[in-house]
Amino acid sequence: MKALDLLFGKPLATSEERGEAVGPVAGIPIFGLDALSSAAYGPEAALTLLIPLGLLGVHLIVPVTTAIIILLVIVYFSYRQTIEAYPQGGGSYTVATENLGNGPGLLAAAALMIDYILTAAVGISAGVGALISAVPSLQKHTLLLCLAILIILTIINLRGVHDTGVAFMVPTYLFLATLLIVIAVGLFHTLANGGHPTPIVTPPKLPTATAVLSLWLVLKVFASGCTAMTGVEAVSNGVKAFREPTTKNAKLTLTIIIALLIILLAGIALLCRWYGIGATNPEGPGYQSVLSQLTSAVMGRGTFYYVTIASILLVLSLSANTAFADFPRLTRSIALDDYLPHVFFIRGRRLLYSYGIAALVTLTGLLLILFGGVTDRLIPLYAVGAFTAFTLSQAGMVVHWLRSNRELGWRLRAVVNGIGAVATGITTLVVLVAKFVDGAWVTALLVPSMIFLMTQVKQHYRRVEVDTDNPKSLSIENIKPPIVIIPIDRWSRLSEKALKFALGISPEVIAVHVEGSDDSHSICDEWEHKVAAPLREAGLEVPRLVTLKSPYRYILAPVLDFILEQEKNNENRQIAILVPELVVTHWWENLLHNQRANLLKVLLLVKGNQRTLVINIPWYLEGH
Amino acid sequence: MKALDLLFGKPLATSEERGEAVGPVAGIPIFGLDALSSAAYGPEAALTLLIPLGLLGVHLIVPVTTAIIILLVIVYFSYRQTIEAYPQGGGSYTVATENLGNGPGLLAAAALMIDYILTAAVGISAGVGALISAVPSLQKHTLLLCLAILIILTIINLRGVHDTGVAFMVPTYLFLATLLIVIAVGLFHTLANGGHPTPIVTPPKLPTATAVLSLWLVLKVFASGCTAMTGVEAVSNGVKAFREPTTKNAKLTLTIIIALLIILLAGIALLCRWYGIGATNPEGPGYQSVLSQLTSAVMGRGTFYYVTIASILLVLSLSANTAFADFPRLTRSIALDDYLPHVFFIRGRRLLYSYGIAALVTLTGLLLILFGGVTDRLIPLYAVGAFTAFTLSQAGMVVHWLRSNRELGWRLRAVVNGIGAVATGITTLVVLVAKFVDGAWVTALLVPSMIFLMTQVKQHYRRVEVDTDNPKSLSIENIKPPIVIIPIDRWSRLSEKALKFALGISPEVIAVHVEGSDDSHSICDEWEHKVAAPLREAGLEVPRLVTLKSPYRYILAPVLDFILEQEKNNENRQIAILVPELVVTHWWENLLHNQRANLLKVLLLVKGNQRTLVINIPWYLEGH
Repeated sequence: MKALDLLFGKPLATSEERGEAVGPVAGIPIFGLDALSSAAYGPEAALTLLIPLGLLGVHLIVPVTTAIIILLVIVYFSYRQTIEAYPQGGGSYTVATENLGNGPGLLAAAALMIDYILTAAVGISAGVGALISAVPSLQKHTLLLCLAILIILTIINLRGVHDTGVAFMVPTYLFLATLLIVIAVGLFHTLANGGHPTPIVTPPKLPTATAVLSLWLVLKVFASGCTAMTGVEAVSNGVKAFREPTTKNAKLTLTIIIALLIILLAGIALLCRWYGIGATNPEGPGYQSVLSQLTSAVMGRGTFYYVTIASILLVLSLSANTAFADFPRLTRSIALDDYLPHVFFIRGRRLLYSYGIAALVTLTGLLLILFGGVTDRLIPLYAVGAFTAFTLSQAGMVVHWLRSNRELGWRLRAVVNGIGAVATGITTLVVLVAKFVDGAWVTALLVPSMIFLMTQVKQHYRRVEVDTDNPKSLSIENIKPPIVIIPIDRWSRLSEKALKFALGISPEVIAVHVEGSDDSHSICDEWEHKVAAPLREAGLEVPRLVTLKSPYRYILAPVLDFILEQEKNNENRQIAILVPELVVTHWWENLLHNQRANLLKVLLLVKGNQRTLVINIPWYLEGH
Repeated sequence: MKALDLLFGKPLATSEERGEAVGPVAGIPIFGLDALSSAAYGPEAALTLLIPLGLLGVHLIVPVTTAIIILLVIVYFSYRQTIEAYPQGGGSYTVATENLGNGPGLLAAAALMIDYILTAAVGISAGVGALISAVPSLQKHTLLLCLAILIILTIINLRGVHDTGVAFMVPTYLFLATLLIVIAVGLFHTLANGGHPTPIVTPPKLPTATAVLSLWLVLKVFASGCTAMTGVEAVSNGVKAFREPTTKNAKLTLTIIIALLIILLAGIALLCRWYGIGATNPEGPGYQSVLSQLTSAVMGRGTFYYVTIASILLVLSLSANTAFADFPRLTRSIALDDYLPHVFFIRGRRLLYSYGIAALVTLTGLLLILFGGVTDRLIPLYAVGAFTAFTLSQAGMVVHWLRSNRELGWRLRAVVNGIGAVATGITTLVVLVAKFVDGAWVTALLVPSMIFLMTQVKQHYRRVEVDTDNPKSLSIENIKPPIVIIPIDRWSRLSEKALKFALGISPEVIAVHVEGSDDSHSICDEWEHKVAAPLREAGLEVPRLVTLKSPYRYILAPVLDFILEQEKNNENRQIAILVPELVVTHWWENLLHNQRANLLKVLLLVKGNQRTLVINIPWYLEGH
């Protein structure tokens, strides 16, 4: 266990739980990293689509960002209310299920699970992508780097919530500090120069326009820009992780995160406009990210530039952490409602839902491998899930207020969430339509499949419950020993042990022997003097010995037939089959023994019924 | 079973065995394909090494082939005697073990297993290689083609010996007929033209000499040419497969095979000399195999040429069949001596040793994958194994005659086998030294590793035998029911079933319950009125209920500790743990239930001892 302790920390008792709670300072990195790091790819995604418009595109980024910020403010007020109403953690899944019913709840569940997996995948791939732009020689190892980061994140997260906060605090605050300085300095230069600042490093020239402005293009730009909003729901899902007073701490953390995100988005958009910075073709030569252009234009290519770029790289790849914090909590909630396997609510050694983390890591790894770790291919799948969850959550809150109509100000609150629901609902449709061909169709296909699977899981648990629930008391009828059957090939210490066990538990014992081609040491020759005689002498019942024929050299088939025949002829009796099992010292030694005992057990489970069972009598090789 | 029947034929009863025996007409393809097809790569392998000598090389092929033929004749007389002495099948393994002891026997076993796997791999890869020379566009699918042929061979062989004979008869006889016609026609033209025949298609010009003749080169040429001899031991291994009178039929078959092989080798060498045909560089452009050059020189490039080439391709890839016929017989013999897992002597549905075939297919597939299906890379590994086995077999026969000195003519026979042993022994050394760097070192490493493994296997079986052998009669002491422990979380139909079974087999039952965080439906609340009361009323013993605490949320650890404690406190008693097991309808439903029952069983096997055992009480979900 020592190695595990070193890697993942010592196991925590249930009573140590409170100590893991966090305040706003640790909460911002944990629950805000995803939302804040979106500023590094959201504006860039929008500007990339605007490249064909040339200078006009750079002008357009300001109104598009304004629209996104308005949406963000609406969503902010909505989620403040969710935190208040659901101090136990009001994820979209909980809110949608409680207020809108199981159907919308499952829709939210599926959308959110997909969204978290994409959060992890996009965060890691964007980080690696940025690293590769800085060190092009690493390009051929893209996927390997992605998977290495995934493994590091897994280890950090398996240590538990508190340690995670520490690991992520430094990069997050460095990222925020450097970008805010860039924006402040840029703003100062712009004001000092009457709106026309001089870049220290001149950004690449904007291309001449090759397309005209169209509503369709604007919708696509908006849809891509909306990826900047992913992750804002994290706080409301994780209210429980906050220190007392939880609601207040959670709301404060949310306010700070949203305020910082608005400053980043607005600052980036305005500086792009003032400095004339557009995106460059990510597939072409001479590619440079928007934030890289911006930082060098404002601050030059000194030490500060490299610190900024390094913090962006780090934060992008670590943003996947929001998924690690929330995905296991989400799957736990779904599993508690029987829609996912129950392992998802088993807590591991460090008070975490280890199976949730395992599922997230597996699915994220799969996604990274399938898409080769390339962000560009993952982006179109993203955002549909997030906005579906936003919409269902707000709509659920509207119903919540309508129902609890005694509460003060419920009308205003319903209106706030109503506006949120409508705004995010429209956005969901826009994103789905605008990005359908590029990849949103994958999400559109996955969601119903996952809902189907979850319904099947629920149905299974329901069936087990109905089948095993026992309202009655113990029935004392028919309590009697089983008929015991022992397949024996030759007289050995194993067969003696099995026979003694059988005689101990039941007066009705039958030994069966299958006639083979090599019967030199068959039990039949030794039965009389080795078994029957001693028992008879002691006045004990002698078991029956039955010999079975097998023309096709099968051993199991005749035994199985005999067992099923006994079961049929003895109604209401249990039939126990005793099979000796050799316990070997090394795993490979199992290869040296035929697995007939296990095979017989499987066959009996398939062909048998409630009344047959297999009892393995273990035999340990000496020296074990 | 119907699909299996169609693919592999109907199952055969043990009594149908004799019907599978073969005569010389079917025996030549089955046991001779490997030896005869060697004529297609043996001379070529020798000539390839002679390329640097130019015209001198083509002249040298005749004396080298003469040496090989002399060796072949010596080996022939040796093996004739082996067939007579071992009518039950005198593989090198049997002969070496019986006469020289276990060490040499294991050496022969390891050498032969490697040799058979290489026979299969080289046969297939050479066939595919030839096919690719004819249709170069298939080159990129080399490995895939190799594996496809391996699968086809597997299916053909799983049908049984008799069917196999039919499948291989046509190509073998076609191959023999066409090559013998080429040799006869070539001989006629040579005689008609005073030793200087005119080729119909002129072969590629021989290169000018770039190296001088050296003893080392001659040794390497001889070593490579010796691959032409691989496979001649097949008949002596498989004597049992022949129709009565088996010995006579086997000897006749061996004689025909060796005679044909000598004609082929001599014919090819002489025609190469007379027509001035040398090998071409197999890695360079314009490569053409020796047999292709020969056939076009003698017969022209008509229909006959293509029929010949097609039959060579077919026979080469089918020559792997000797391995399929003999490898499973060999592994069976070794397994009967406990040096290999016992599954190797279990006979399948069609009277074949299916596990042997499975092992051969797996290892051959692995070898093909590792070496990319390229013959050139496999050839240096080959022949060492074969000649090691030859040597041990002949040496064993010498000892055999020395021991049975009453038999008529034993002195002459010992001398014949002695000459064989010395000749093949020297050849083994030559091959090992000449090809060591090129790949024979792999075989030299593998052989001792395999011997080590086989000794370990033997030791294990020995230990099991010593450990389980039971010379005594059944001891009637201490026959009593076990102490039964049932872990129960809540009252259900499963726990009722388990409890009733426990009460049926033993008066001492203990129910244990682990206190968890979610104890809303714990057994503790219901124990009194659902279990204790009805039993008390009926005047039956009430089982003890024990509650265990678990601060770290582990369920299994406290149960395991309790079981081990009980085992310690109750000497000479057996402790049976009853664990209910849910039997689901679909395999995926198992994912929905934690595998605690199985895990507990594994932990008990690891931590427990002879006195603890787990009894799974199956519970079938209704609708099953």
